[in-house]
Amino acid sequence: MPPPAPTTRVIEAKTRVIYGDTDQMGVVYYANYFRYFELSRSEFFRSLGGSYVELERQGFGLPVVEASARYRAPAKYDDVILIEVKLVELRRASLRFEYVVRREAGRDELATGFTVHACVGPQGKPTGLPTEVMRLLSASPSP
Amino acid sequence: MPPPAPTTRVIEAKTRVIYGDTDQMGVVYYANYFRYFELSRSEFFRSLGGSYVELERQGFGLPVVEASARYRAPAKYDDVILIEVKLVELRRASLRFEYVVRREAGRDELATGFTVHACVGPQGKPTGLPTEVMRLLSASPSP
Amino acid sequence: MPPPAPTTRVIEAKTRVIYGDTDQMGVVYYANYFRYFELSRSEFFRSLGGSYVELERQGFGLPVVEASARYRAPAKYDDVILIEVKLVELRRASLRFEYVVRREAGRDELATGFTVHACVGPQGKPTGLPTEVMRLLSASPSP
Amino acid sequence: MPPPAPTTRVIEAKTRVIYGDTDQMGVVYYANYFRYFELSRSEFFRSLGGSYVELERQGFGLPVVEASARYRAPAKYDDVILIEVKLVELRRASLRFEYVVRREAGRDELATGFTVHACVGPQGKPTGLPTEVMRLLSASPSP
Repeated sequence: MPPPAPTTRVIEAKTRVIYGDTDQMGVVYYANYFRYFELSRSEFFRSLGGSYVELERQGFGLPVVEASARYRAPAKYDDVILIEVKLVELRRASLRFEYVVRREAGRDELATGFTVHACVGPQGKPTGLPTEVMRLLSASPSP
Repeated sequence: MPPPAPTTRVIEAKTRVIYGDTDQMGVVYYANYFRYFELSRSEFFRSLGGSYVELERQGFGLPVVEASARYRAPAKYDDVILIEVKLVELRRASLRFEYVVRREAGRDELATGFTVHACVGPQGKPTGLPTEVMRLLSASPSP
Repeated sequence: MPPPAPTTRVIEAKTRVIYGDTDQMGVVYYANYFRYFELSRSEFFRSLGGSYVELERQGFGLPVVEASARYRAPAKYDDVILIEVKLVELRRASLRFEYVVRREAGRDELATGFTVHACVGPQGKPTGLPTEVMRLLSASPSP
Repeated sequence: MPPPAPTTRVIEAKTRVIYGDTDQMGVVYYANYFRYFELSRSEFFRSLGGSYVELERQGFGLPVVEASARYRAPAKYDDVILIEVKLVELRRASLRFEYVVRREAGRDELATGFTVHACVGPQGKPTGLPTEVMRLLSASPSP
């Protein structure tokens, strides 16, 4: 049986750019967009009820195996930015999220990106997604 | 004439701890509390009407000349934390802010700290606080 | 005339993982690999004689327009890591670097990645690479 | 018996400022000096033979309970900086390190600071420094 279709849930996280996020070019440092991606991803897991913290307590983790970003326009100090995240692929032992970062004012698209995650079990060994997690992440979470 | 008493305004910023804030001890890395301090300080300036961005556009800056923190209890992944900031000293050419970081759940005090800022003018030269800024930061901002 | 072939120069930067690079999973936080990439890229430019600082003084910049990493094995606290960088594409107005991150002990491959950079001129406008820069980055830097 | 005098060992770590360390003021972001402090502290522990990693394997940790910095002159992109660290206080259950950050070129003093560390045992409980550690950190490490 193939994995179910991923949930269509879309989460939008919000943060404000601080000095510590910028570099001397006067814009957000490129690596920090991956922090923003994580911020939205955490909210995504939290939105499922039982945050990623719970998932971890059960001994599972979803380490990033691939991460990518395209930078279209710079985010600047004091900008309020919105990070939209969607689960676009749900496999037996991996997930793929996609992100869009926008400036709140004008909703300009600043960056897009994705992350791919593997599932690891209690000893850090690769494993399939637990049934419970698969259920939470699928389009039709019941019966 | 001595500088006026500082405003009694208290600002409380809010953020959520992400993986990127933690270290392998499982708690927020000590340097990142200074990022939290900055987050609240930015909100403080914004609350005055005309954010710190405006102050900068006029060519002024308030670089940190001293920063200090005491760590009382660790913040952890997924914790919602509150950062309270107050202006406790207003001098001709410097400011001092104090901070209290709390976990939202239970309002446990996690850390306290302060930063001292000098005022620099357009060419990065030390200068007195502009009258307009002094007015905004004082207890009695009018007439 | 097409741009010349890129220089075959290979630079290997070296750094040691600190607590501040790790997260609570006990490994280097995924975004920090992009800091390592930058470290090696800076050394690459420096190796050309006249560092990236000089390039900037002339008013040019090479902002990242795309960045990507694949994570194969985790770097841990206290690991000495080596970051190899090569220029793999040289175009009229853009560059592509590729990176390999290894643990010094055993030379295990930890991550690979790439960054694509556009060239911008003094006012942040997209522009072609200056002749001088093109020459420095090409396989046959003379006459 | 009072704790022995601390070792007079002085360690100087070295790093180069990358874009990711700077902020839009064009200088190193104030929080990042605490990363530099940690870099030198790690080298200090490593210099004792058996790095801090070993100390941790035994179940001990030295979390920061206080951290402070004074900023005298800004470090900038591409600066090579030296961080000198000394153990200035050795108590039954705590340590104090002092730091001086200098630019290699000219050896200008950029910042000074200190950190205070408590000793915690396997379950994160406050504890006295293990005899072995006390011995390594004292001025006369043998008989």
